[in-house]
Amino acid sequence: MKPIPPERYIDGVRQGDRRMIGKAITLLESRAARDRGLAQQVLDALTPHAGRGLRIAISGPPGVGKSTFVEVFGHHAIEQGHRVGVLAIDPSSRLSGGSILGDKLRMPRLSSHDDAFIRPSPAGEDLGGVARRTREAIVVLEAAGFDRILVETVGVGQSETVAAGMTDLFILLALPNAGDEIQGIKRGTMEFVHLLVVNKADGDQQQAAQQAAHTLEQALHLMHPPEPDWSVPVLTASAREDLGLEKIWQAVERFHGMMQASGRMAARRREQSLAWMWALVREGLEQRLREHPAVNLEQGLLERAVKAGRTAPAEAAERLLMLFSRPL
Amino acid sequence: MKPIPPERYIDGVRQGDRRMIGKAITLLESRAARDRGLAQQVLDALTPHAGRGLRIAISGPPGVGKSTFVEVFGHHAIEQGHRVGVLAIDPSSRLSGGSILGDKLRMPRLSSHDDAFIRPSPAGEDLGGVARRTREAIVVLEAAGFDRILVETVGVGQSETVAAGMTDLFILLALPNAGDEIQGIKRGTMEFVHLLVVNKADGDQQQAAQQAAHTLEQALHLMHPPEPDWSVPVLTASAREDLGLEKIWQAVERFHGMMQASGRMAARRREQSLAWMWALVREGLEQRLREHPAVNLEQGLLERAVKAGRTAPAEAAERLLMLFSRPL
Repeated sequence: MKPIPPERYIDGVRQGDRRMIGKAITLLESRAARDRGLAQQVLDALTPHAGRGLRIAISGPPGVGKSTFVEVFGHHAIEQGHRVGVLAIDPSSRLSGGSILGDKLRMPRLSSHDDAFIRPSPAGEDLGGVARRTREAIVVLEAAGFDRILVETVGVGQSETVAAGMTDLFILLALPNAGDEIQGIKRGTMEFVHLLVVNKADGDQQQAAQQAAHTLEQALHLMHPPEPDWSVPVLTASAREDLGLEKIWQAVERFHGMMQASGRMAARRREQSLAWMWALVREGLEQRLREHPAVNLEQGLLERAVKAGRTAPAEAAERLLMLFSRPL
Repeated sequence: MKPIPPERYIDGVRQGDRRMIGKAITLLESRAARDRGLAQQVLDALTPHAGRGLRIAISGPPGVGKSTFVEVFGHHAIEQGHRVGVLAIDPSSRLSGGSILGDKLRMPRLSSHDDAFIRPSPAGEDLGGVARRTREAIVVLEAAGFDRILVETVGVGQSETVAAGMTDLFILLALPNAGDEIQGIKRGTMEFVHLLVVNKADGDQQQAAQQAAHTLEQALHLMHPPEPDWSVPVLTASAREDLGLEKIWQAVERFHGMMQASGRMAARRREQSLAWMWALVREGLEQRLREHPAVNLEQGLLERAVKAGRTAPAEAAERLLMLFSRPL
């Protein structure tokens, strides 16, 4: 098969050709050595055309109705004249292999809409790999003119940290449980949240949702705000019945405006880029160390000795570093 | 001056000789190259005698009364037959230089007690250095027979993460503010907390303290517990009036018992040792990279290009790794 030249990817994406957008993301996801040069070329050409969108992370516990929320939330953005890209960070898709069909089933309206592009989580990769591919997919979608990027995450392991590190705003969905029941919010998640939404506020759950919102509001009052000029709104909504989505978008745009006016938006992105560079450097360094033959040989032994308390962690660390710096 | 032989340090510490305990910690804190061999010898000899104590992190916002709390809390442990070591992780002491006199003033009873040993935060170091010295000071104090180690932290920057990474249990102190006032709990701190104490519950603040405890309890109910069999207790106390400290120790010992019986205590320490080893490896790797002449030369340029969006983070990271792996 003749390889597709870089211009075809670049022009296709820039013209919003859905097939080429999909192919470009697949190219960037490829880990095959023969694709890396072409992938880098395409990414470099698209990068200057990216960055103008608003990137929104959406998380929440299982059963909170994330898919329906993303579907209806995305549709509202389209009605406002935006074009919506949907990406997912889902470490559990490593097991299931991910599935486009799954996304078509879970988001029927959005997946068939011309102004939306849904891309499932790259499967079979570690979180570092997923983070890299998702960042690059954001570039492709923004270069293709999608200006509201929704990054859905299941909240397993470090996936929320990864999502927060590549988005401008973090929405946490909660369930309309009454005060004393456990919401199941992961400790540490609150660190990222800019906007809290109690979903499923419909039918006989409306009062419970109000109560949950009140309790969450109180909990948030105990904590430092994520940005100096922003107190985290707690809103109720029902994605299923399409209630309250307007207000959420208003809050999102208010946050967007505040972050842009204060210069925090640009600063946050600069910090994210720099943090990402150093994360990749650290990942690369550790990978090189772990792949070093002498380290490889002794690592298990040292880890067991440290766990058993026979060797001090500092001593083992120095030994590993020493082994690594020895010439092969 | 003739150097002190390692046996004098080791025997002195094991016999609980306060002067030698202090000297041993100073030796381990020393970054002088000529001390490192001796320091390692002393640390290796003491390590098998450490590990039997309970290590408790204590944090809280400024003005919460941490010093008084540690003083009275420590005194209660002594009355129960324990011996108490007090360490501090305080990145701000880099500026002040730390001060023993300061500790004598802030903890007059504990600092003069035979069954207590107070050691201020090592000054003039980065957090990685402080973490290393504090971990080693824990070994010295436990080898000297101190079995309740209190690690006080100011909660600035990453100091809570560092304290949580070397202790068995994390106590967060809060102020008796009513529901709607901001407690100022740092986002992310809740991740570590095993026990929450509303301090200064005395005089006309008692009702406000109860209210604050109730609100904090509700906030905690929304979050996953830190250990499967442990729901975080929220207690009220007044360290100044010595009220409620008994109950806190009971909760601490209950946690200690649960963690030991379930095997989670040993598992947590094994995980901590391993995580610490890898943290030191990563720190060492990054330091070597940053000190590499070719990296050093280009790093600023690349960082600026990434921040300005001219260079993709992945590209800059690969360039830095390439420069690092080049032979000198």
